[in-house]
Amino acid sequence: MRAAIRIVGIDPGLRRTGWGVIDTDGVKLSYVACGSVTSDSDEHLGHRLRQLFDGLSEVLASLSPVEAAVEQTFVNRDATATLKLGQARGIAMLVPALAGLTIAEYAPNAVKKTVVGAGHGDKTQIRAMVKCLLPRAVPDSADAADALAIAITHAHTRAWTKLEARVTQAERAAS
Amino acid sequence: MRAAIRIVGIDPGLRRTGWGVIDTDGVKLSYVACGSVTSDSDEHLGHRLRQLFDGLSEVLASLSPVEAAVEQTFVNRDATATLKLGQARGIAMLVPALAGLTIAEYAPNAVKKTVVGAGHGDKTQIRAMVKCLLPRAVPDSADAADALAIAITHAHTRAWTKLEARVTQAERAAS
Repeated sequence: MRAAIRIVGIDPGLRRTGWGVIDTDGVKLSYVACGSVTSDSDEHLGHRLRQLFDGLSEVLASLSPVEAAVEQTFVNRDATATLKLGQARGIAMLVPALAGLTIAEYAPNAVKKTVVGAGHGDKTQIRAMVKCLLPRAVPDSADAADALAIAITHAHTRAWTKLEARVTQAERAAS
Repeated sequence: MRAAIRIVGIDPGLRRTGWGVIDTDGVKLSYVACGSVTSDSDEHLGHRLRQLFDGLSEVLASLSPVEAAVEQTFVNRDATATLKLGQARGIAMLVPALAGLTIAEYAPNAVKKTVVGAGHGDKTQIRAMVKCLLPRAVPDSADAADALAIAITHAHTRAWTKLEARVTQAERAAS
């Protein structure tokens, strides 16, 4: 039997950061938990970032994932929005780094491609596929569902990468 | 005699974040220390953010400022650069928030206006004025000098705000 690896997926946002935790043995996926941490928009930016930091730290401390996958934030045309998102994303990358986790980053299109099978699946398709792959998951928000999709993407990517390495090794040994 | 307030100014950047600490009694300024914390560009983003986090946390723990002033990052046209800066800025805001400091934000133009007297003073002018206001300061980098300029801006702004409040109160009492 293979050892299960616990993965946390994070979808960063200043108002709401989604998180989703799954276990994978390299083939099967199993749902652990998901949710979102929010920040109070009436509060000062420093305090809001602290709310995200505290919330994510709590998730990592209680669920103990060993690898993290963070969505590579969509860079839109609005520089102010990009800056806001960047600040929240800084926290989303810092918390797993402080906990000593390895961190992978995935572009939104890579997530859509893995979960839906095409690069431009819409949000509804992603949620339907997450539901199908992790039937026990009941995400409280689109951000939590997206975070699970990121965790799934990482589980698939790491399994694929390991398989490729084995193929290369076998081919070398045979030649 | 007035009690001195210790202020830390922070100029956020992913490669190098400048910091500068000064004391002010509301009138006079005195230099405490300045420097910069850097991140290793060969490292993964999560680790780089952790380097900034650890470095800034150490500065705050050893110098114990009670108020922080952070430069409101210049939003340029390059979205990727803005996102990078945003991530570093998230850490620059989080560290004083975790330490319970009040945090003020100043736009680069406000800093230039306060320190040089005009909104578009160049970097050389800012450094010359910092040198003049804090003769004991020997910044190791432009970022450390900028961080001192931000701390000076905050010292002037808070003194001005307090004076305005006193004027308003006196006028009310007299009417």
